[in-house]
Formats: sequence, C-alpha cells, structure tokens
Amino acid sequence: MIRVGIIGATGYAGGELVRLLMGHKGAEILWYGSRSYIDKKYADVYRNMFELVDDKCLDDNMEELADQVDVIFTATPQGFCASVLNEEILSKTKIIDLSADFRIKDVSVYEKWYGIEHKSPQFIEEAVYGLCEVNREDIKKARLIANPGCYTTCSILTAYPLAKEGIIDMSTLIVDAKSGTSGAGRGTKLSNLYCEVNENIKAYGVAVHRHTPEIEEQLGYASGEKVLINFTPHLVPMNRGILVTEYASLKKEAAYESIKAIYDKYYKDETFVRVLDADVCPETKWVEGSNYVDINFKIDSRTNRIIMMGAMDNLVKGAAGQAVQNMNLMFGIRESEGLELVPMFP
Amino acid sequence: MIRVGIIGATGYAGGELVRLLMGHKGAEILWYGSRSYIDKKYADVYRNMFELVDDKCLDDNMEELADQVDVIFTATPQGFCASVLNEEILSKTKIIDLSADFRIKDVSVYEKWYGIEHKSPQFIEEAVYGLCEVNREDIKKARLIANPGCYTTCSILTAYPLAKEGIIDMSTLIVDAKSGTSGAGRGTKLSNLYCEVNENIKAYGVAVHRHTPEIEEQLGYASGEKVLINFTPHLVPMNRGILVTEYASLKKEAAYESIKAIYDKYYKDETFVRVLDADVCPETKWVEGSNYVDINFKIDSRTNRIIMMGAMDNLVKGAAGQAVQNMNLMFGIRESEGLELVPMFP
Amino acid sequence: MIRVGIIGATGYAGGELVRLLMGHKGAEILWYGSRSYIDKKYADVYRNMFELVDDKCLDDNMEELADQVDVIFTATPQGFCASVLNEEILSKTKIIDLSADFRIKDVSVYEKWYGIEHKSPQFIEEAVYGLCEVNREDIKKARLIANPGCYTTCSILTAYPLAKEGIIDMSTLIVDAKSGTSGAGRGTKLSNLYCEVNENIKAYGVAVHRHTPEIEEQLGYASGEKVLINFTPHLVPMNRGILVTEYASLKKEAAYESIKAIYDKYYKDETFVRVLDADVCPETKWVEGSNYVDINFKIDSRTNRIIMMGAMDNLVKGAAGQAVQNMNLMFGIRESEGLELVPMFP
Amino acid sequence: MIRVGIIGATGYAGGELVRLLMGHKGAEILWYGSRSYIDKKYADVYRNMFELVDDKCLDDNMEELADQVDVIFTATPQGFCASVLNEEILSKTKIIDLSADFRIKDVSVYEKWYGIEHKSPQFIEEAVYGLCEVNREDIKKARLIANPGCYTTCSILTAYPLAKEGIIDMSTLIVDAKSGTSGAGRGTKLSNLYCEVNENIKAYGVAVHRHTPEIEEQLGYASGEKVLINFTPHLVPMNRGILVTEYASLKKEAAYESIKAIYDKYYKDETFVRVLDADVCPETKWVEGSNYVDINFKIDSRTNRIIMMGAMDNLVKGAAGQAVQNMNLMFGIRESEGLELVPMFP
Repeated sequence: MIRVGIIGATGYAGGELVRLLMGHKGAEILWYGSRSYIDKKYADVYRNMFELVDDKCLDDNMEELADQVDVIFTATPQGFCASVLNEEILSKTKIIDLSADFRIKDVSVYEKWYGIEHKSPQFIEEAVYGLCEVNREDIKKARLIANPGCYTTCSILTAYPLAKEGIIDMSTLIVDAKSGTSGAGRGTKLSNLYCEVNENIKAYGVAVHRHTPEIEEQLGYASGEKVLINFTPHLVPMNRGILVTEYASLKKEAAYESIKAIYDKYYKDETFVRVLDADVCPETKWVEGSNYVDINFKIDSRTNRIIMMGAMDNLVKGAAGQAVQNMNLMFGIRESEGLELVPMFP
Repeated sequence: MIRVGIIGATGYAGGELVRLLMGHKGAEILWYGSRSYIDKKYADVYRNMFELVDDKCLDDNMEELADQVDVIFTATPQGFCASVLNEEILSKTKIIDLSADFRIKDVSVYEKWYGIEHKSPQFIEEAVYGLCEVNREDIKKARLIANPGCYTTCSILTAYPLAKEGIIDMSTLIVDAKSGTSGAGRGTKLSNLYCEVNENIKAYGVAVHRHTPEIEEQLGYASGEKVLINFTPHLVPMNRGILVTEYASLKKEAAYESIKAIYDKYYKDETFVRVLDADVCPETKWVEGSNYVDINFKIDSRTNRIIMMGAMDNLVKGAAGQAVQNMNLMFGIRESEGLELVPMFP
Repeated sequence: MIRVGIIGATGYAGGELVRLLMGHKGAEILWYGSRSYIDKKYADVYRNMFELVDDKCLDDNMEELADQVDVIFTATPQGFCASVLNEEILSKTKIIDLSADFRIKDVSVYEKWYGIEHKSPQFIEEAVYGLCEVNREDIKKARLIANPGCYTTCSILTAYPLAKEGIIDMSTLIVDAKSGTSGAGRGTKLSNLYCEVNENIKAYGVAVHRHTPEIEEQLGYASGEKVLINFTPHLVPMNRGILVTEYASLKKEAAYESIKAIYDKYYKDETFVRVLDADVCPETKWVEGSNYVDINFKIDSRTNRIIMMGAMDNLVKGAAGQAVQNMNLMFGIRESEGLELVPMFP
Repeated sequence: MIRVGIIGATGYAGGELVRLLMGHKGAEILWYGSRSYIDKKYADVYRNMFELVDDKCLDDNMEELADQVDVIFTATPQGFCASVLNEEILSKTKIIDLSADFRIKDVSVYEKWYGIEHKSPQFIEEAVYGLCEVNREDIKKARLIANPGCYTTCSILTAYPLAKEGIIDMSTLIVDAKSGTSGAGRGTKLSNLYCEVNENIKAYGVAVHRHTPEIEEQLGYASGEKVLINFTPHLVPMNRGILVTEYASLKKEAAYESIKAIYDKYYKDETFVRVLDADVCPETKWVEGSNYVDINFKIDSRTNRIIMMGAMDNLVKGAAGQAVQNMNLMFGIRESEGLELVPMFP
C-alpha cells in the first residue's frame, strides 16, 4: 500500500486527488494537509466525502510528512514546494508537485514569468516533467515530478506528434485555449463569483499567461528548435474542462490519412489519449470526470493550415489524474490504476 | 458473470446504466438496444464511450434478448415494457423495468394518471417495487422489478422514517421538488432546448404529475393510511440532481435528537443514504455522479412543522444506480458492487 | 429633473439602479456612493457602463448628499441606513432604503431576526412599506420608504389577493422560494463562487431566513390576523430571477373562475403584475430584466389546496425596479417611467 | 411611424426584433409572420410578451405584406428571401434580410458554401451589406439590405481598422470565435438540448463554416487584397454573446499608442463600438442585451503578432439590433433610436 500525503488537500485539485485515490486499490491517504482548515474535518470542507473520509485536516508540514508517507502531492500555490523542499525530504519520500516550481528548466524564465524568486533551483535539473505519454521512462525513475499545468498538458499533447515529426511550422503555432472555472481555483475572488462568470466569456492573461513558456519549452524539445507561440486562455462558464484549438501552417501539403497515421503512431497504444474519428470535434463533456484527452485535427487546404483540437478534464488529466498516473509509474504499478473512470455524460 | 441486456440504451438513463455497468466487476453488457439507432455504433451516440464500447446498437427485441441474457433493463417510455412482457420472457430472464409500468398496484390509478391502457396487468401483483432500502428482501426473490421513479425515490426516502413511525401528519405532507434537466430525457423538444432552460426556473405538471400517486402509494404503505399529497416538480438549469423539500406538521412537539434518532434507526446501516449533521442542508452537487441520497431535516417550532430535505443524482440513485443496486440484490452479489462512485465535486 | 444619489452603487442592486435610471427621463444620478471603490471610475467597476457613466465613486456621506439631491437610494447592508439617518437628512431629501431597516414595524422582531440593534427606531412608524401595488397612496406622501425585500415582494404579491379576501387558511401557508445567485450579492464568499453554485441546488436559511417576518407582517395586514408561515429559500444556478411556489388550504371549495376573478380584481389594472392564462406556469426567464411579476395558481381538488406561483426578476421588481417605481410615485410622475423594459428572452 | 413587417418573427432573432421595436418610438409592427405558428397568439410563443403584444402570428406572405408595410425584416433560413423576392416587392417596400442570401457578391461563392441555388441573383449587386459602421452612406440609400451575420459583424469590426490601414499581414489572420447557444437558433435539434450544451465546449464547422467567405469578402474590401482566413466557431454554454479572438502578424513593429490611435480614428465617434482601455479584455457579459461591440487588442512583441478581441450580443448587434440600426439609417431617423439599451449586468 502506497502511503500518500497531500499538501493543499482542500483546493479543487487537492479534492480531486482525494476523489481519485479513494478508488485506487494500491494507495491510502494518511495526511490531508490544509493550512486554512487545520483541525477541521475534511468532510466538512468537501461534503461529498461525508461518511467517506473521517480524517481532519492537518498542517502543511513537509518534514514530518516525509517520515510518514511514500509520496507527497503538493497541490499548492507557486513557490511553496520550492521553498520547503530539501535533500532530506527527497531522500525519504517521493514528491509530485502540482505547482509550476519545477516545470521550467531555465530558472530565469521561471522567475520572469512567475515574478518570484526560486528558492531551490538545485532540484530543477533532477525534476522530471511529468507528462506521462512523453516522459514515461524518466518518470519511472524519478524522485521529484513536476506535474504539468492543465493548459499545457492539453496544448502539448494536441500538437506533440506533429511537432516531433516536423510536420508543422513551429513559428506559426497559435494556441487558443478555453477552460472551465475550476481552473481558477477555490479562492474567493470577485472574478470567480458565479454572477461574474455565468453567461460570460472572456480572454485573460493575453500574451502573458504563465503556461506559455512551459508549452514553448516542451514543444521545443519535441521539435528540436526554439519555439515561441501565442497562447490565449479564455474563461468559460462551466465547472470542468479544457478545450484547445491550435493553428499552425503545414510545412508541406498533407492528406488526412498521413496526419492521422502520425497521431496514431504516437497515441495508438496510449490508454488515455483518444484520437477521434475523422471530422469529429473533441468536446469537453465527452471526457468529463475522466483521465482521457480527446484529440483531433482538420486540414484546411485553402490556407494550408492545420487546426488541431484537444479536450480534457482540467482537474483529472490536467492535474490530479496525471499526478496519480505519475505516482503509478513511479511505484511500478499499473499505470491506469485508479484512473479507469468512464467519462460522465451528461 | 451476469449477462445484461439494455433496451433503451441511448436515453440518458440507458447511457448511465452503461457507464455504471462498465465499472461493475460481475456484469457484462451483451445487448445495447436502441430502436432509434439500430446498427449505429454505440460510441457514436455517446462519444464518452469512444474506445470503451465497440458494440453497435440493436433492435428492442425482448424475446430474442431473453434467450441471451440473465437480466434485461428496460429504460423505455411508459407502456413499452407492459406491452411486450410475457410469461415466457419472465421464465427465462429477470426484468428490471425503469418505466412506471409496474410501479403502481392499482391498475386504474396507473391508467388514470398515465392516460394509457395497461397491457399486462397480470404481472403487476408479482412485480416488486425496487426501492432497495425499503423492500430489500422482496427484491432478492423477484423476477420483475419496478424500478422507482427519480422524484419518487428521493421523495419517499426523505419522508419514510417519519411516515413509518407515525411522527408526521400525513394529510399535511407537501413535496416541493426540483430537478436537473436530464430528468426530462433526451427528446428533442422545444422545452428541453438550452436557451429555454438556461437562466430559468419554473414549476410544471402542477397537481397532475405522474409521480404523485407513486409517492402516495408507497408512503401509504409506510404510514398505514391512505395518503394524498401535493407534489410540485420544478425544472432547474443544471444537468443532474434532484432536491426535494418536504413539509409536514408534527403530530406532537419533537426535539432534534428524537427525530435524528428515528432517521438513524432506518438509515444508519444503509450505505447509500446519508443523514447529514445538524443544520447542514443537502445539496445536489455533493452527490453528483454517485448513488447516495443525502437527507436532513429542520424542525420549526413556530409552526410545528418539520422541513425534510433530500438530494440525489436523478440518473444514478434515481434511475440507473438503483437499477444496478436491484440487480445486485437479485443476483445475490454485494449490493454496492459497481456503485462505489465517489461524488464528483465541483 | 429629480436629482438622485445612490449609496451602495457598486452592489448588484446598486448597479441595477444605475442601469434603470439611465433610461429614466426625469432623473439624473449625481452621486455614485461606494465606500469600497472611492475615487475609482464607476465604469471600471461595472464595465457595461463604459462610455455611459463617466463619474467616479464617492464616499457614503449621507449628510453631504442630502444637500445635493432630491432622493437618496440606500442599497446598503442591514443597519447602515438606520445608523446614519436623522431628522435633518429627512427634512432635506427623500430616502428609499433598499435594506430591511425600516420594513418591520415591531423593532423587537427586527432585532431578533437580524441580530442587530436598531439605531433609529423613531423613524420606523413614519416609514412606508414600499410595496407599490398595495401601499400606493401612502407611498405618494412618504419621506422614507422601506423598499421590500426580493423574496418578500414576490411572496406577498403572489398570495395577497387570496389573503385579503379570506380565501385561504393562513395557518397553512407555506412558501417555497427559489432565487438566482445575484440575490446573494457581490460579496466574495466561498458560497458565491461559480463552481460552488453551478450544477447545484440547495435550501438555505431553513426556518430562520430574515424575510420570513416581513412576509408574515404584510400578509397579516392583508388577512387581518396574525400569520406564521414556513418560508424556505433555495439557491438556483442562474444570475437573476425568483420563483415562489406557495401552498395553502382553501377555506372552502373554489372553482378556477372565482379565484381568477379575485386575482383580476386586484391586478387587472396593475401595469407590473401579470396574471397568466389558465394552466400557464410562471417562469423567471419570461420576466428577466423587467419589472413584471408573473402570477398564476392551480387548484388541487384532491387535497383542497391551492398552489400559487409567482416569478420576478429579483434585481428589478425585487429591488431596483421597485425602488424606482416608489420614486416615481413619491415625485408624482408616471409610475412606469424608466421601467418599461421588455423582458429579455432568451 | 414606420410600418414594420417581420417574417420569421418566432425565431430568436425575430423575437429580439420584436423586443427592440417595442422600445422604438418611430416604428410599429403590423405583421408577425411565422409559418409554424399561424393563428397562434404571438405572446403564447414568447410569453415575455404577455400583455405587451396582442397580435396573432400570420403567414409568411411577402407580396401581401409589401402592400401594408414600409419595411420587411426577413429573419428566415437561408434561401427564403432570395426565393420570394421580386422587383414589385422591392418597388413597394424596403427589405432588411437577416439571412445570408444577399451578403456575398459572388453568387458562386454563395452557392458553394451554402449548398443551395440562389433564386434571385439579379438583386445581389443592388443589395447593400448592412454593416452600419462601414457602409453607412450606402445603407441610407438602399432598398435591400443584407444584414451581416453574427460572427461576421464581430469578426470584421474587430479587425477592420487594422485591415483598412494595412497594419496587419492579412495572410496570417486567424479568427477563433465563441458563441452563445441562441446563435444556433430555436430548432429542436439534439445538439441544441440543454444537457448537450451545458458544461461543454466544442468547435464546430471547422474550416467549413459559412461565415468564412463573408468575413473574407469584407476584409478583402477593407485591405484591398484577396483574403483567406481560418475561422473557427465554438459553442459556449451561455444564451447570448459572441467573443472573437483574432491573431495576425504585424507588418512592422508597432506600439500600443499607434494601434490605439488607429482604432480611435475609426471608432471614436461610433456610438456602438467601444474601444476599451489598455489591457481590459472584452467580455460578452458587459454588452449583453445591448447593441455595443467592445473591442480591444494586445501586442505580443515576442511573436510580433497582435491579438484582437471583440465582444458583442449575437442577437442584438449580431442580428436584430443591427437590423434596426439599418432601418433607422434607411429611413433617415436617429441611428440609435430604439437601441439605447444599457447592457444588463449580471
């Protein structure tokens, strides 16, 4: 039994970790960390857990936790994990960090986009970027996982095969992304209020959103060149789901079948990536509650561009689900354990 | 392995049956019946099932199906099951009917409220009303289950202990119910359109809704007297969930603790009924996607009334989940098999 | 031109006052009071007003304001208006208070339900309860208006004719109310977050909601007897709208036509109350953005109860619209000026 | 008084025309055409109009109508207007066609994208494309107006100044558009059902949506070159609103101020186009119910692209509002008459 500790268990991603791990046969949660709710019953914070979780919330004490558990999930704001991590902790337990602290290899890029000083840059090199379908083998051996961002997971997986195979002109790549509101977290901000979000759509963070350099770095590895993109996130009035619509010029004319073959080459054997049938557009509802990413594309011969689309549940494959998938890989158990949830419709 | 056939597999309740049975270790679906989509891939109708279900939809042939499966779920419009059922079918297979055809013992009441002739009244007496928490022992021995309606399940369970123990004046019982839109089915009607439902709430079927006599009959059995109630359903702009708010006069003054004790007497050992802590109001979101019913109450000493509240997912405990629970009881397997879904939040 | 000052102009009700008064030909807003946003451009708080309102937000200074305007709307939390009001202010300007401070004649009832001390009980007697359709003549002569609550406006108007005419047994009256989320205000509370409200419905304030005594007092005046009711509000995932479903026993059997005649007697000439055709249930969407209240009823001869229903926009007839209607009456101009908004659908 | 006839008065755009014209001081509706609801009271189809509109729906008889009214709005499916229009009708009355029949000058382009034969190509040349801010003078003299599409109005106005001034490389223009569900009409299709749209987002019509050639044609006129774009519409779970996010490469580096100056040059004096303050992103909710288009842009110097954004109510400026604006221009009355609606928030 993998002993699990969660720091930040009362955010939406933390709550989703709890939901998923309760259906996981090889893991048990020993520590529900939540600085805001110390000593409060977890089920009083998330009442869906009434009669299912009896534990109280505990403090965010990484050192103590490291002695008790086999893996710590940090579902915490940027900067937290970097500020408390040390070699002793890492020598005792594995860390899966759901924040951005160890996602970006160039610390100056991190500090520029996030506007904070990185407190433990010495662990950046060791950290493995936990995009399972891309870095599976490295993940298996890792002590420290940088769990990818929600937008980035969807954005990267949707374009990855074509970037890797050199099919698209990376300098033309544009990612227009749409996210449900749980991606904004459980903070009590005006912009998160029901009446501000409902019946509304807007772009935000235009040209400055922090997931931009993460996508650029990873697609840069894939394509073997420096990548600069436009990434525009939008807030959509729904709880869950991310849809990305990506545009790029084809380096040369391509037929549907050849592109489909490339996607299949990379994803045919992937449990959690589903390349849809021709002309079927991904919809977030078809993956809700599950760890799937649905992907498809359309070639526009008029403009010689390809439109790539990906849909995903931001709290599952975009956060907690991928984190569990990483845990499974790190501990050598079945990769899909605890993640075989059928999408819920409607 | 229980071999399962579904008739009406492409309605919302049918789709939920498929979702639940895919997580059930002791059952497999052999027949996806859907007259509207014969020969179409099931996963083309419900794309959440892409790469999960390979089968095509088949016709609604009960006779043929009876030879192939151990249990048939009929998730069909009123009148269908009664019109095709016969002794031969029942001798070969078990039937769990999600329609109202066998819920009401007095055929004249059925015919009056539903406005159709009952085609096989000879099976009404045998049919067991499949409210698991109330009729568990009878269900275990049944060949034919009348799976309760969504509103009725929630309405009955919320009031049952107090009706049974004679605590409330049944002549004063009023049920004000609120349902998400999946309860209206997948029919392409104007009143089901997004723009007609969204940002809107209304009552409908006031004083004439068909679930009224079903609630009255069952609470009549519980209380040992003839019961007439007011039942008012409302359509709420959300996909899933039923909330009932019930009002009744207390026969005599009662303290919180004594009423709580009565609820606990009936539901303490029930896996799927959760009586909440004092002053916590049930919310549909806390049970979404799960088989739980959350119940609580509040005594108003000013008016000597008790307000009882219940929340449930209409497609799970209100339809497919209870149907699976019935199946588990009928086949002698663990009652919660396939139903241990943690509610999804948010 | 009526010179208007608003205190609390940046809450939802305050914002709606601005929207309505911009279309009012006889009034102009001189003071956008908002303690939270002093010196900030109003249009930066509510961007719908970009290029329409150039003013900045000012402090909540009633004394200064009284010198400058003909009427002050206080769209403020409970207790504010009572704490700052004095005879000098009232001698200079009219006050329309959208809070509960002057709605309840018995100060001990106010203090018990609101849990605060009333700071100027000497004005309670003078204050006129601004339910225009009921107290029109008194409103015309008033200096101080207690603008009714949202739930109360809808609850009272829906039952008023039958209470007044002695048709229903007041001791059996139950009001089950459903409200959109703007009724909860623009406060940044967890329970107001999008992901907490969306896809969810719940009751709240069961048996203790503060609008209860207000409804009881007014329906008590109408019926000529002391009235105690059950009032249960519910939070619905939509921005605007209140629907009330009210239940009461008929004192004696009644036919549809006789009840309809009573409603018509009271509302036939009322611009803003629409008694619907037989069997049409009110829906909040049909009145959205307008000052209308749609009302209808259904008699259930089985239980001898009548089910009354009313739908209204909580921010218009339930707050700002009624406040403007009161202003129109107080200043002797056309009652519907600025309020002739056609409901927006969809 | 302008006498108005509406054909297709019971669609969402038709309903919005009625709402707007009821607040128009110089127009009255004489004919509520609706083939589906002939002889049914209009207020029974749209109950928001209860006690406001007494008329019944009439047949779609253009010839008869031409004798009775000064202007006919055709809010009808593609092909209808072209199939019934003739010189006699046009000699008697003005036509504002809300369908696509006369929007595209090259009939072969129309026939290719719409897949139907054009039945009166002889009027295409005469028809004026009714984008008021661009073609105001021609509109004033027109007999036949092709009222622009919803997506196209927003897409064109958002990019128009930069296209016209040669600031952006037109070959790089990509329009990623998001629309509320009323844009899909009131047809009872599965894809319009509440449960299919709610909690979901998807792209549709990728690379083949019919608004593409309309945008290309108009931006071609503006830029003086042949334009081919990618246009991708998305369906968003909300009733109203269109947001477009447009991407293009700048021909040369540009500063915020210079681009802002260009937008101001075109829109400073336009009542219904609001260029927002720096860094403020348009949101559909800020224009809901009104005729405004909110526009802004962001320069990304990393990629040398500009991101342009526009938000609009699809039923107002995107359909009925612009149609009324066209009517006002054609009849020489104040352009904003009947359109001075303040956006409704929340």
